[in-house]
Amino acid sequence: MKENEFDYIAWIQKHLNHTSDVPVGSGDDAAVIKIGKAKNIVVTTDTIVEDVDFKTKNIAPESIGYKSIAISLSDIAAMGQGKPPLYALITVALPKRLNTISFRHRLFKGMHQIAKKYEVRIVGGDISSTNGPLVITSTIFGYNCLPILTRAGAKVRDVIMVTGKLGGSLGGKHLFFAPRIKEVLYLNKRYKINSMIDISDGLCADISHICNQSKVGARLLEAFIPVTGFSIKQVHKIGKSTTQQALYDGEDFELLFTASPTEAKRIIKNNKVKVYPIGFITKGQGVYLQKINGVTHCLKPEGYKHF
Amino acid sequence: MKENEFDYIAWIQKHLNHTSDVPVGSGDDAAVIKIGKAKNIVVTTDTIVEDVDFKTKNIAPESIGYKSIAISLSDIAAMGQGKPPLYALITVALPKRLNTISFRHRLFKGMHQIAKKYEVRIVGGDISSTNGPLVITSTIFGYNCLPILTRAGAKVRDVIMVTGKLGGSLGGKHLFFAPRIKEVLYLNKRYKINSMIDISDGLCADISHICNQSKVGARLLEAFIPVTGFSIKQVHKIGKSTTQQALYDGEDFELLFTASPTEAKRIIKNNKVKVYPIGFITKGQGVYLQKINGVTHCLKPEGYKHF
Repeated sequence: MKENEFDYIAWIQKHLNHTSDVPVGSGDDAAVIKIGKAKNIVVTTDTIVEDVDFKTKNIAPESIGYKSIAISLSDIAAMGQGKPPLYALITVALPKRLNTISFRHRLFKGMHQIAKKYEVRIVGGDISSTNGPLVITSTIFGYNCLPILTRAGAKVRDVIMVTGKLGGSLGGKHLFFAPRIKEVLYLNKRYKINSMIDISDGLCADISHICNQSKVGARLLEAFIPVTGFSIKQVHKIGKSTTQQALYDGEDFELLFTASPTEAKRIIKNNKVKVYPIGFITKGQGVYLQKINGVTHCLKPEGYKHF
Repeated sequence: MKENEFDYIAWIQKHLNHTSDVPVGSGDDAAVIKIGKAKNIVVTTDTIVEDVDFKTKNIAPESIGYKSIAISLSDIAAMGQGKPPLYALITVALPKRLNTISFRHRLFKGMHQIAKKYEVRIVGGDISSTNGPLVITSTIFGYNCLPILTRAGAKVRDVIMVTGKLGGSLGGKHLFFAPRIKEVLYLNKRYKINSMIDISDGLCADISHICNQSKVGARLLEAFIPVTGFSIKQVHKIGKSTTQQALYDGEDFELLFTASPTEAKRIIKNNKVKVYPIGFITKGQGVYLQKINGVTHCLKPEGYKHF
């Protein structure tokens, strides 16, 4: 029997004890921990690997540094959090081939730039040499001061929404995206959101994560899925429709979330954060796509899998 | 001009702002953060890389998993902390060649085993594939409930002490060591310790870290440095004296610390934690070794350098 990345994570989770000091453990975008009598702490860790998550050829070291922190900020946002200050620890496994003063300094500058912008204090780290690709791990944590938004709270009839256009992230967005911290702080303070995730694996895989953890299904409306200009441009070049790109490309780092129809109406009408409704939560299992031509079919919950 | 690992870290530190919510930032074994009105949080991150920090050939996956968490626990201990529960996040960049169910499960079992022993809750992580070596990053944090012990508090006349025998860690200790959590909780609760570090780079490099940050010098007494049985055995085989091994091998993961002579006397007499006095803190700069033959000479602050 083949065990993929998600099976492995599920296997690990079975071995972890649930204790009351960890309201949200492994299996969501970030963990939530009650530490003493303090408010909760929200914490996430992410690792990016050269030639898997980024290339070093033709990409500025600053952009790699930026991305290493941005992906963790996106996870913090996906829990409905992000109030500054936030704190970061970063580890770098640095290949000899890239180990020049210029590369090292520019890599850090990219981290420093985004850290400043989002009031993230870099409080520690570790540097190691490696004979292989560049690997960067960032751990970010902060205070949890707003309701915790998990993948498990979606309810039947909820409207599914997304904070931006999807697809074709390899055209650049996967490096230069703005983590949706400001947006989530605005929305989570004012509206009742039932579930949330950030789109890293792809719309199809990530809505499946919400469905699985909430024990519901979903119906996406093709006509409503907002697509990027870049994905439109490359349709003929790569032979994939914009919908296919939106569903499966991943690394959009937009927030995907659900709220009751009444609440969704209010959310969509807000004039501060652009929000696109793209479907509904349904009873039962499975993610269905209602195509523009009226035909509805079931989607396989596929996205980027590491193994 | 060559910039080594420590120069790079110093360069990074110059760019980080000091804020009152981060009493101890980058540059010690762990960071200390004041989060809201809560007690402080102590947090550390460490990365280990295949073929640099461990081999996968002839070494059980469980041992690699164990080490990945043990090194971070050693850093938490080096700050004088470690009261359970502690919390861990772990990321793994997994090469295809090792990506079997057996390897993955055994790797996690090693992590789980040490986590259980030290009451560390694994609350999150990330798994990625890689075309290169196995890379594991662990981030551990917990409550700071005892005085924070940094590298910067050593005082002239302090006695330098160590919690165990040194040298020859490659013989196995670098994989199987017990992080000195229990020991430090005992000592830090009862005695006034002025400075502390864990020996990862090697006695010579690590006492130099204390000296640099405390703006003092040190005199080590060769006759007093406790050496491992393994280092004695391999003297002829590798042509390095036990003292050379103790000074430069690194990865002993014993605690190296200083206290006033009066306090040191009390500490050494305790009948719970074995402590070896090995020298004194002095005025001025530099680390000196007073050899068994009476000759004293200055040591170069060398240890394992990643670049």
